[in-house]
Amino acid sequence: MIKQSRVEMRQRDLSTWPHYDAAALGFRNYWYPVTWSRRIGRRPVAVQLLGDRIMFRREQGKVYALYDQCLHRGIPLSVGRQEFPGTWSCRYHGWTYDLQTGVLRAALTDGPESAICNKVAVKTYPVEERAGLVFVWLGDGPPVPVEEDLPEDLIEPDTLVVGRITVRKGNWRYATENGYDEAHSHYLHRYGALMMLFSRNPGWIVSRNGGTMNGPWMSRTADEVGVVGDFPGLGRWPKFRFWHRLRGGPRVAVRLPSSLRVAYPKYTHYTWYEPVDTDHHRYFQLMVVHGSWLRRAMFWLTYWLYRRWIFHVQFNNQDAWMVELMPETGPERLFRPDASITAWRRLCEQARGENDAEALLERGGHVAEGGAESAEIGAIAHA
Amino acid sequence: MIKQSRVEMRQRDLSTWPHYDAAALGFRNYWYPVTWSRRIGRRPVAVQLLGDRIMFRREQGKVYALYDQCLHRGIPLSVGRQEFPGTWSCRYHGWTYDLQTGVLRAALTDGPESAICNKVAVKTYPVEERAGLVFVWLGDGPPVPVEEDLPEDLIEPDTLVVGRITVRKGNWRYATENGYDEAHSHYLHRYGALMMLFSRNPGWIVSRNGGTMNGPWMSRTADEVGVVGDFPGLGRWPKFRFWHRLRGGPRVAVRLPSSLRVAYPKYTHYTWYEPVDTDHHRYFQLMVVHGSWLRRAMFWLTYWLYRRWIFHVQFNNQDAWMVELMPETGPERLFRPDASITAWRRLCEQARGENDAEALLERGGHVAEGGAESAEIGAIAHA
Amino acid sequence: MIKQSRVEMRQRDLSTWPHYDAAALGFRNYWYPVTWSRRIGRRPVAVQLLGDRIMFRREQGKVYALYDQCLHRGIPLSVGRQEFPGTWSCRYHGWTYDLQTGVLRAALTDGPESAICNKVAVKTYPVEERAGLVFVWLGDGPPVPVEEDLPEDLIEPDTLVVGRITVRKGNWRYATENGYDEAHSHYLHRYGALMMLFSRNPGWIVSRNGGTMNGPWMSRTADEVGVVGDFPGLGRWPKFRFWHRLRGGPRVAVRLPSSLRVAYPKYTHYTWYEPVDTDHHRYFQLMVVHGSWLRRAMFWLTYWLYRRWIFHVQFNNQDAWMVELMPETGPERLFRPDASITAWRRLCEQARGENDAEALLERGGHVAEGGAESAEIGAIAHA
Repeated sequence: MIKQSRVEMRQRDLSTWPHYDAAALGFRNYWYPVTWSRRIGRRPVAVQLLGDRIMFRREQGKVYALYDQCLHRGIPLSVGRQEFPGTWSCRYHGWTYDLQTGVLRAALTDGPESAICNKVAVKTYPVEERAGLVFVWLGDGPPVPVEEDLPEDLIEPDTLVVGRITVRKGNWRYATENGYDEAHSHYLHRYGALMMLFSRNPGWIVSRNGGTMNGPWMSRTADEVGVVGDFPGLGRWPKFRFWHRLRGGPRVAVRLPSSLRVAYPKYTHYTWYEPVDTDHHRYFQLMVVHGSWLRRAMFWLTYWLYRRWIFHVQFNNQDAWMVELMPETGPERLFRPDASITAWRRLCEQARGENDAEALLERGGHVAEGGAESAEIGAIAHA
Repeated sequence: MIKQSRVEMRQRDLSTWPHYDAAALGFRNYWYPVTWSRRIGRRPVAVQLLGDRIMFRREQGKVYALYDQCLHRGIPLSVGRQEFPGTWSCRYHGWTYDLQTGVLRAALTDGPESAICNKVAVKTYPVEERAGLVFVWLGDGPPVPVEEDLPEDLIEPDTLVVGRITVRKGNWRYATENGYDEAHSHYLHRYGALMMLFSRNPGWIVSRNGGTMNGPWMSRTADEVGVVGDFPGLGRWPKFRFWHRLRGGPRVAVRLPSSLRVAYPKYTHYTWYEPVDTDHHRYFQLMVVHGSWLRRAMFWLTYWLYRRWIFHVQFNNQDAWMVELMPETGPERLFRPDASITAWRRLCEQARGENDAEALLERGGHVAEGGAESAEIGAIAHA
Repeated sequence: MIKQSRVEMRQRDLSTWPHYDAAALGFRNYWYPVTWSRRIGRRPVAVQLLGDRIMFRREQGKVYALYDQCLHRGIPLSVGRQEFPGTWSCRYHGWTYDLQTGVLRAALTDGPESAICNKVAVKTYPVEERAGLVFVWLGDGPPVPVEEDLPEDLIEPDTLVVGRITVRKGNWRYATENGYDEAHSHYLHRYGALMMLFSRNPGWIVSRNGGTMNGPWMSRTADEVGVVGDFPGLGRWPKFRFWHRLRGGPRVAVRLPSSLRVAYPKYTHYTWYEPVDTDHHRYFQLMVVHGSWLRRAMFWLTYWLYRRWIFHVQFNNQDAWMVELMPETGPERLFRPDASITAWRRLCEQARGENDAEALLERGGHVAEGGAESAEIGAIAHA
């Protein structure tokens, strides 16, 4: 018996939002970005996503995705080899899977007559490429068109996409909540961020609600902006210096499964907080610019000259700092600005497939045709 | 099912001393030393003590202690900032707590009208400074006077306190038992310690009991001293060389919650074995000297010239070695000299507040006045 | 509640072989190799074996083994000292054990009259030395003759034994299965191994059964050898180049508790996959050569010139790679060549003492005479 610390604090409790509570590994039935297209070549790339370990590999220009474990003894397929076009062989005993369907085409070390061939299949995942990125469908049924899960912005012509992809500590929910959270931008980023050297946010924003829907996007509303105030018994806050320009109100929107859009004057910023495992997320920071060749080239230049370093690295490291410090179990006591967080949690309860079990089952009826589902195909030769 | 090793050994079992058994994180309701006074300045210092994470910070000469977690989202307050005198603000959203009472004075990013202000409070801890050290009260009720838990020696005038504070591996109980343990000093420290180059302990001591009380201190008694003996079938032990001087008997005393006193001719040695978490303790090694300015200056010089290295580092590293090697669950079979250990365990059953639940409850009645207790003050604005 | 990945794969399930399933720490009641004889001198060597921590030490030419934990407070005896010939003393309080019987001969810091002497004993293990190696009996009853558990080959005169002893990751069962596994040698070692630069295995072997017994050894049988084949819809495999010589069929045998024999033209190769803990095994790779002094000297030279590097290091590192990648829980779906693995698992169900509880009890009757058993000898002085 170990004595508890007698500190009593109200503990975080997500039971009001049961699907969100259960989604430590994220929401399936969505398209998720994986990496830059140029990163996937003939050599397999192993990626963990929503807890699944997946092997990605390009052949004849097309990207394929297999669950990264051989059915035989569990060795990762990503350490395997290619023996025949359109297939991939496990490094241990040469079990050879079809890249497209996942079906076992040969078990080389059992000879050409092996009875297990075509009887089993490893799970495969639908893959699409758009805007220089690879997207994968993580779902139990057949995929929706990839465009449904992509910001339109990203797939217009004359688009430049630049950015940074990193894996960070902390559950994806803390990171997404931090992204859509109104209030932290008025305090956390006020100090120490190079990006805020010549500008300051207002002190606070009052919202009547946590967000309004606009298509798949939910945006924060600002009903009242508090630039500076007199706090009873304490004094005036925040301080503005003569070189500080007041920055505008919120232009932030969030959408399922876990991406953020922030509209800046010169570009739009998209973020994904993608579950890796329960304690890590993959962080996509993308700047999207449209226009002439020259305009895009100039932006590319400024991105690599300074935007990347003062925004994606130094500014967003402040967010990462907080997300890392967030305890897995710990206190939570929300205040008025957290209406944005509760709105987002409510939105999550509507995640695709979370509340329509029947619809999902119906879609499941198409699985056999879809061909992307891992399944027992038949009996096994050697029991 | 994993097969057990068939080695049968009597396992350690503390159930005879249930409060001691439960005290993996130590005994609350005592004053504990934290660090040197000079180490606490305006920059917060985060310390873990008896499992509690506490932030210490000095303002206007006074040291304050807050439970190191914001009530809002759980971010450590020790990474925060100061916005107004007498308060401390969380780095994430600017929740601003009163240093003295822990009451939430402002939630900056919710504006001056925020409804949550003065409704909640973070736990604070009573703090005192004596003899160049900071002490904190870890208890559920109001503190006793700090002098009750301090060796008088420490707070006399003309006192020099020098020493070393480190965090070591191993539960605090193994370290305290090692400190008060008679027998290990006759064997462990006999070999390899520079401090024993010219002297040797006797081979063994026979005690009729494990300790006699003298105020709060329990001292080992020596009823019979065995300098050297003839072990049947083995031979004589221990060996003394001509350059070895026989050292005296035990001058060791222990007191609750976990400190040791050893009287040496030129100074008194005080030790605290303070629980950090269940597997680490903070080890205070303090030499206390009284007298003229010159005497103290000379002692300070010899401490830094050699005493620190041959005593606090090399000699006591032998103890740390044993405490680290002590298995969390493992064998225990006590022998006659361990009467000192069982006496200490019995003493622990009398720890303050452990056997007087009613007295504690009564003291609890003063909590509201004490003002040092974390409590829900009122309802919360945003549920 | 965390959502499961919906990937469905048949999971490894050893319940068909309950003794094997339970043997995560190996089979007791066998002699196991420990290390090279020349590695055990007067300084104790601590070794973990089948989960037991054992201290080995040589005195007057004989090797002794004690369970590596003092009965008193659990400190490892291997950090101890010697005070009297034929005994070993714990570093903490000088409890002094007889090396041969484990009986407590003295508790030095309790004086020569200590009542606990001769009342308790630490477990000791029977030890033998053969062929330049130390062997230990890990069993509950008295040992069988060590020759029963040793390949005869190893103890003939004019024998050279050279090799490598390392601790590797992975449960001993994965390593032993990999050793006796027929099929992986046709695929895993085909590529990238220097040893296979000028030779190639056939593509596959068909066995009517997984092994036939020959004394304690079970050998794989080859009923049909497939050198190269035409795989439907894929093509011919494997590819042989003009510089590739076809290597012969299987010459592999396995025996309980966990050793392998492979007969090569110039030497015999013996391997032990010895359980350390549930996730590590000690890997003995031994080449055994007989003959004249010159023949053995020449082989010793070639071993250190190249055999060690291309076989024991580079070739067997391919095996270690797979054993490390084997998931603790994960998929398993056996195919025809895995008949060798199921035959080995069946053999394990016959491991010594696993199915003959009565026989074991009978042997247990001799324990008191054997003197190698740890046991409570009498009552303890200080309770």
